[in-house]
This record gives sequence, structure tokens and C-alpha cells, in this order.
Amino acid sequence: MDLPQFLFSLIVIYGSARLFGELAARLGQSAVLGELLAGVLVGGSVLGWVEPTETLKLMGEIGVILLLFEIGLESDLKAFLEVGWSATAVATIGVVMPFALGYGLAVVLNMTPLQAVFIGATLTATSIAVSARTLDDLGRLKSMEGNIILGAAVLDDLLGLVILAAIMKLAADGSVSWSQAGLTAAGAVLFLGLAITIGVRYAHWFSRLVNQMRTRGSLIVAAITFALALGYAGTLAHIAPLVGAFAAGLVLARAEHQIHLGEHIKPVADVFVPIFFVLTGAAVDLGRLNPFSEQNWPVLLLTGGLTVAAILGKLLAGLGAREVRVNRWAIGAGMLPRGEVGLIFAGVGLTSAVISTAEYGAILTVVALTTLLSPLLLKWFFKAA
Amino acid sequence: MDLPQFLFSLIVIYGSARLFGELAARLGQSAVLGELLAGVLVGGSVLGWVEPTETLKLMGEIGVILLLFEIGLESDLKAFLEVGWSATAVATIGVVMPFALGYGLAVVLNMTPLQAVFIGATLTATSIAVSARTLDDLGRLKSMEGNIILGAAVLDDLLGLVILAAIMKLAADGSVSWSQAGLTAAGAVLFLGLAITIGVRYAHWFSRLVNQMRTRGSLIVAAITFALALGYAGTLAHIAPLVGAFAAGLVLARAEHQIHLGEHIKPVADVFVPIFFVLTGAAVDLGRLNPFSEQNWPVLLLTGGLTVAAILGKLLAGLGAREVRVNRWAIGAGMLPRGEVGLIFAGVGLTSAVISTAEYGAILTVVALTTLLSPLLLKWFFKAA
Repeated sequence: MDLPQFLFSLIVIYGSARLFGELAARLGQSAVLGELLAGVLVGGSVLGWVEPTETLKLMGEIGVILLLFEIGLESDLKAFLEVGWSATAVATIGVVMPFALGYGLAVVLNMTPLQAVFIGATLTATSIAVSARTLDDLGRLKSMEGNIILGAAVLDDLLGLVILAAIMKLAADGSVSWSQAGLTAAGAVLFLGLAITIGVRYAHWFSRLVNQMRTRGSLIVAAITFALALGYAGTLAHIAPLVGAFAAGLVLARAEHQIHLGEHIKPVADVFVPIFFVLTGAAVDLGRLNPFSEQNWPVLLLTGGLTVAAILGKLLAGLGAREVRVNRWAIGAGMLPRGEVGLIFAGVGLTSAVISTAEYGAILTVVALTTLLSPLLLKWFFKAA
Repeated sequence: MDLPQFLFSLIVIYGSARLFGELAARLGQSAVLGELLAGVLVGGSVLGWVEPTETLKLMGEIGVILLLFEIGLESDLKAFLEVGWSATAVATIGVVMPFALGYGLAVVLNMTPLQAVFIGATLTATSIAVSARTLDDLGRLKSMEGNIILGAAVLDDLLGLVILAAIMKLAADGSVSWSQAGLTAAGAVLFLGLAITIGVRYAHWFSRLVNQMRTRGSLIVAAITFALALGYAGTLAHIAPLVGAFAAGLVLARAEHQIHLGEHIKPVADVFVPIFFVLTGAAVDLGRLNPFSEQNWPVLLLTGGLTVAAILGKLLAGLGAREVRVNRWAIGAGMLPRGEVGLIFAGVGLTSAVISTAEYGAILTVVALTTLLSPLLLKWFFKAA
């Protein structure tokens, strides 16, 4: 991609994201819904103006890293620990139920048990970016529901990691590696625990360091470097970079009263984040959803069934919240979006020929539908309450 | 490049840029000198930790676009027009003198007239990014010298464009296309003139539009989109995107009292800009400068001669400033850095076999040396005054 092409892509992404984000907001919806739909429009399905090049994808990833970093920065670790049991229950039910429903559906549709395991696994992991943005758009990030959703999504990411480790060998030789799963889980939990406890203990070192710097941009670059470093270290412990960045935010939140980082990080996040959501929308393949094409019917049946399983499973998870006056349906809606982790499962299944390309396509569509539905449902349930 | 590799590159770039930028500032130098040296260290010549991938290069280009946009935003169009004659004189002498010196040197070294034309042409165009950052670092951006340097650099870019158009056919069939050069020049001047006059006239529309937007990040994304759009439109008129972005900044400067864009654009620029300077430093090949390798000697002779010609030519250009109490040597030092445009000339010469890879390497080194020397000399001349 040469520079003019790249500039053109960015102009289209920003222009359409702003336009549709504004429209969504004026229709009372979350702006992120508009950005996702902008992506559908400018992506390959309709206009084909934006191609998901490596550069755009990587910049989008920086976007979600910064989004979660900013959210961590605005969060209160204590508030998370207070809803810890609810978050654990929501995460656990939200992994077990979609798996069971997906597995059952696959068996009913005459798939093998191995296929059914992969289909079920793809439905388990929540993708946090869309819910986090929606909660932010709706001003509900610091509500009890927001804390439970974020906490559950982090645990969910860990559970997804464990499932992945467990079934990686399944496709190859049919055996489930419980020891590998246990080791991976221990490593991830250890990393997050250490990063947060050590980080919180020494967060004031960060503000001291930054205060000694004399050159322009020290604060913002040092903070982003810290977020990227924890994100990178997380990947070494097999954790998604955005979870590491979220931990970095939680840590620096302790020094926030001294450094006032939030106001500096916002414009930077505003520049990277829309790239992620527009690309997410652009990945939607409307062709697969065409009911007038007869060859789509079997896949549409599977897609419809999986979508119902995906939605039902996570809505039921919301009921796991223990607090008395909490909006359980909103929590379920917040856990709805699927994303990268599910696609990784599906990808492993596809490359080991356990699932077919048609089934992979169905899972892609489930990811798209749950992602687009979550902002709508979240708004709806919050309004209904 | 996968995500962890990309994160690692960014961490290295930001970490080293901050560290060396701070060191440079503490030694009384411009921070950008530190960032360039950080690039030399982490680049392929020494540590090899950062590879100039497409993504990093494109993000660096966004960096210079935002840098020039921000500088335009802080600039006063009137102040430029006031030093217009000086800027024109500096730009003209700064193109003619390095060309003549480079041409003469090439002839003395037994090159053909065609080769000499290419060698001379590579020395003409100033690369504005380093001077602009240095002036900003030294707090001299809004001085009379700063305005003359920026104005001359924009004119210089236009002149470089005209030269490129004129000699594009030279390598192929030996003929200089004056009509093509004239057309290109007219197009570029027309574009810049129209963009600025129309833009300034309707700048208040921008603030009105932004004030009506309700979603987060409207201002920063709209402003950056405008800068990217003028940068992109500029490329269609064969102008460097950073000149278009500079014009966008000049335009929005008229609405700045209403929108307070500067404070939002700074952190975003701070995140993109170091990528450009570290990559610029990383492009330096120290191996070519090794005087103990005998095979380097002929190239080192050419490199040394061209470097002297490049420095002398631009320092003489500074004498073209008419104002009474102006630091002429500092202006010359600000015009010193060469960059992309010179490398484009050299590239055209290389691909059409007019100049050899050894000569191309010499020009690469001249670009590196003038770039590293300019912050040092600028600081020196300002201090001496």
C-alpha cells in the first residue's frame, strides 16, 4: 500500500465513522453501532473502498489496546473486586451455556462429537472491545453492570485461553491436554496477578519518572509505552494484548490524580479506535446472509441456530449476577459480542479439517451478528430498566 | 509482521526515542537529534531491533503530516507573507547553489554531464520535518528565522517538484521537458493558492460543523481528516502530503480561537512523530562510513565532497534573507536537511542506470549527515547570536 492509498483509506474510515457515529447517536443508539455499520458500508460487501491491509489492522489493534488502557485508567480496582463473585459467575455460565447449546445444536445437525466440541468452543469467548465502547458511549462504564461486564470479560478471556490450550491437541490426536490447559491458566493468572499487585505498589514511580522528564510528549509516550509493554508481556503469557493494556490502565489509575493522563490519552484513542470498529464492520460478508441464494440455505440454518445459541447462552449468563438491584439482561447483552478468540478456535478447526469452510463462514456471521446486536440490546435493556 | 512483533517495535522506538531525546535535551541539544541517534542505534547498523516495515513507515508518514499540520495550526499566514521575499530568495539560492556545487563536483570527478545533473539535483530539496521539529524543540518556530525557513521549505518543495518534472524524461531520452515542468508548477501553485484562499474564507464552517457534533472525538478526528484530505489532494497535484497538511493547518488556524484544536492534536502528534525520526535514523548505514575499509575510499571521497557542497549551498542560501536583524546562518542551517525528494531524484537516476549504486549510497549518506547536522548547527547559530 503506498502513502496516497493509505491516506485515502484513513479519510474514508474517519469520514464514514464520524458520519454514521453521529447518525447513530442522534437515533439514540451507541456511536459504535454507527461505526460498525459504516464499516459494513465501506467494506468489501458494499462499496469496497477500504481494504483491511496489515497496516490498518495493526493500527486497529493499537486502537483496542488504547481503548482498554483508557478504560482501565478510569476504573477502580476495588469496584471490580467488589463484584468479583458476580463477574466469576457470569463468566463461567457464559462459557458453559453457549458451549452446551452450540454442542447440542451441532449434534442435532448430525455432526461428529469432535466437530461439536469445536462449534461449541467458538461460541464461548466474549470480545470485550465492542461492549466496552458501547458502555462508554452510553455513560455506563462505571455502573455496577459495567464493572461486572468488564470483569467477566477479562475472566472470559482467561477461560477462552484455557479452552484453547485444552483443545489445541484435540484436533490432531483426539486427546484433551488438561495439563497444558492447567499450566497455561496458571501462567496467565500469575502474570495478571503479579502485574497488577507489583504495578499498584510502584505506580508512584511512574509519576516520579515522568515528572523528571523535560521534553514534550513525555507523559503520553511513557504511558502508552507502558501499556504496550504490558500488552506485549501479556502475549508472552498467551494473554490478549488488550487484557495486558487493561491491567496497565488499572495500575496507572493509582497515579492518575498526579499525572492527569486521561485527557491526553483520549485524543490518541479517538484516532486509533475507529479504525478497529470500521474494519470489524468491513469484515461482515453480506453475501452470506442472502436468503435468495439457495446454496446459502443449509449454512443459513446453521448460522441462525448458532446465533440463537450464542445470544441465549450469554443472556443466561447475565442471570448469574448476585447483586440485588442490577440489570441482569444488560449484563448478558454486554457479554454478547464474539470476536477474535472464537475465530481462532474456528481457524484451528478449519486448518485441521475438523470443520468445513461453510461452517467457518457461519461462525464468521455469528461473530458479526452478535457484534452488531450487542449495542442495540445494551441500549434497549438499559432503557427498559 | 504479527501483533507482538509490532508491539515490540513500537516499545523499542518509543523507549529509545524518549531516552535519547531526554539525553539530548539535557545536553542542551534539540530532542529530535536524540531521536535520530536513537534510530541509528536501534536500526540495522547497530542493534537491528527495529525493521522499517511498511506499517511503521506509513505511521511515520502520518507523523510528519501531523507535525506539519500542527505547525501550520500555530502559524500566522500574515507572518509568512511578510517574509515572503526573503523566503523566495532563500529557496531559490538554496536550489541553485547546491545544484551548481554538486554539478561542478561531479564534473571534476569525471562524471558525464547527465550524471552531474542528477547528482546536482539530489542536493537541491530541503526536507522540512527535521528543521520544523528542531525549531519547535528550540522554541524558535514563531521567530522570523522560523517563518523564513518554513516558507522557503514549502517553496523549495515546489521547486523540487518542478525539477523532478523537468528531468524525469532526461534519463530516458536526454531531453528536458520544460512544458511538463511548467504545467506541474502551475498545478501545484494553483492547488496551494486555492486551498489556502478558499480554506481561509470558509474556515468558520469547520468550527460550526464540529460544534454541532455530539459524539466523542469529533473535533480531533474531523481536524485530522481535513489534514489528511488536503494532504491526499496535494498528492494528486504532485505535492508532498506534508505540504498539503501544512496548508490545512494554516487554514484551521483561522478558526483556532473557537475550536482550541492545538491541545488535542499535540498528544496525537507525540505518538506518531517519533516513529518518523527513529526510522530516519535507522536508515543510516554506518557501514558506508567506515574509513578502515579500503573499498569505501572512492565513495567516501564523493560522499565528503557532496556533503560539503550540500552544506555550503544551503548556508549560502541563508544569506538571501533581506531582513536586517535576522540570523542568516541559522536560516541556512535550517535549510540543511535533505530527505525524500533528494532520494527520489537519486532513485530515478539509479533505476535508469544514470548513477551507480555506489553513488546512490553516497547520496544516502549525505541525506543522513545533513539531517543529523542540522539540529546541531541550528542550536549553535542561535546560541552564537
